[in-house]
Amino acid sequence: MKLMRIGESGHEKPALFDNKGKIRDLSGHVADIAGPAISPEGLAKIAALDPESLPELQPTRIGACVAGTGKFICIGLNYSDHAAETGATVPPEPIIFMKATSAIVGPNDDVVIPRGSEKTDWEVELGVVIGKTAKYVSEADAMDYVAGYCLTNDVSERAFQSERSGQWTKGKSCDTFGPIGPWLVTKDEIADPQNLGMWLTVNGEKMQNGSTKTMVYGVRYLVSYLSQFMSLHPGDIISTGTPPGVGLGMKPQRFLKPGEVVELGIDGLGTQRQTFVADV
Amino acid sequence: MKLMRIGESGHEKPALFDNKGKIRDLSGHVADIAGPAISPEGLAKIAALDPESLPELQPTRIGACVAGTGKFICIGLNYSDHAAETGATVPPEPIIFMKATSAIVGPNDDVVIPRGSEKTDWEVELGVVIGKTAKYVSEADAMDYVAGYCLTNDVSERAFQSERSGQWTKGKSCDTFGPIGPWLVTKDEIADPQNLGMWLTVNGEKMQNGSTKTMVYGVRYLVSYLSQFMSLHPGDIISTGTPPGVGLGMKPQRFLKPGEVVELGIDGLGTQRQTFVADV
Repeated sequence: MKLMRIGESGHEKPALFDNKGKIRDLSGHVADIAGPAISPEGLAKIAALDPESLPELQPTRIGACVAGTGKFICIGLNYSDHAAETGATVPPEPIIFMKATSAIVGPNDDVVIPRGSEKTDWEVELGVVIGKTAKYVSEADAMDYVAGYCLTNDVSERAFQSERSGQWTKGKSCDTFGPIGPWLVTKDEIADPQNLGMWLTVNGEKMQNGSTKTMVYGVRYLVSYLSQFMSLHPGDIISTGTPPGVGLGMKPQRFLKPGEVVELGIDGLGTQRQTFVADV
Repeated sequence: MKLMRIGESGHEKPALFDNKGKIRDLSGHVADIAGPAISPEGLAKIAALDPESLPELQPTRIGACVAGTGKFICIGLNYSDHAAETGATVPPEPIIFMKATSAIVGPNDDVVIPRGSEKTDWEVELGVVIGKTAKYVSEADAMDYVAGYCLTNDVSERAFQSERSGQWTKGKSCDTFGPIGPWLVTKDEIADPQNLGMWLTVNGEKMQNGSTKTMVYGVRYLVSYLSQFMSLHPGDIISTGTPPGVGLGMKPQRFLKPGEVVELGIDGLGTQRQTFVADV
């Protein structure tokens, strides 16, 4: 299933993107694409509905595909070739950092370049959405706790991230730096999360062109690993790192300016399109 | 005013700790100590109530003093003498990192030492609770966005934080690593947040004995600084760093074992008492 949220920011309705490409209103059946609705039981209930019986919604604004996210956990340097382009080596254990949940926006919303930014960059990533509370879970059992996947753009301000005193959070958490969606695609639709093509363009020019095949620490490993440190809760998102092709890794480096358009996609997870704008 | 939350975890009632030391039920007036209730208007409404008119609550479990926290932002190495004891220098700008909000617990709840931990440590800190959305605010205006203060223990696993591949989040976000409270003390009760005595004991032995006087970046500066990077929202907490006396800085180093008891306090903000327990 492809679940989504439709409507103005803060007033989105839960919806289903059906097999015929129609958007169906789920608000008569679930409060939101969040918490209980994305648990194994909640997803089974939605799957049992006849899409034709649900009112059709007009595709106005697409919101972030999940609500109630408590943690937006990102994995750093998780593609060996991306690590190389940034001059770093693959870490012996996953590097984790947090993106503020207040950065979350819809997949096609404008991204605001913060005041003082000169190094706003892009990162197409596979997002993993938790559906069931996970603590000390094994790699073998890890998928039981995953609701599905979504496309994420881990927008990053490189100077804030690395040149303004330690810890990456500062460059990752700016408002609008977390577009997610268009869909939460349930895990049954993705045969192998470690074999998905992914791409990103700036003004139509291909910048990233990779595959989750080259991920260092895979989805199962990450869910298990993170759950050794903290409970993962329904709605939490793990953004699993980016393949090569970010602006930071180019020679010369290349960062985003107001008016530029970023488009990105992952096989089976849909596409995003953001216009980057100045913060006036 | 001193606001608090009373009851079992997940079922706390909002309450007022009145001038006579009685706990008064606010649930007839506000949904929770969160969001709109801690805005300037919300706090004015609570202040206008006659405490004697509110039902008395029995002091069962004290919950975290604020609910709906979207961001738990911590400041690293923000006391010059603490930086020195850990072998670090004072950073040219505040170091910020995130503690998972899923780590938040009540002030006297057990703290669970995670599996595999050998370096669980303590940090008494002044917490600042945001009451109004703040973005690009000046230092002069910063206090307009603060609802008040609370006591926090920024419990930290030093090996997870620093020896398990980059970024501190991993050692700061374990479940129960964020006791806050007992009270959200409104800012009008704290004449000078930069002149508060603070202390912490382990099994009754004094470990930390400092003052917010020696904070490098003060409350006004931090609220303004953080708001340049991201919007701060009502219920967000800024934990402003710890004075000297953590286990990491001792010679030999000294970390917490199951059964040990940590008590801490800050002038005007009350005290906490945690038993550290094994994760079985």
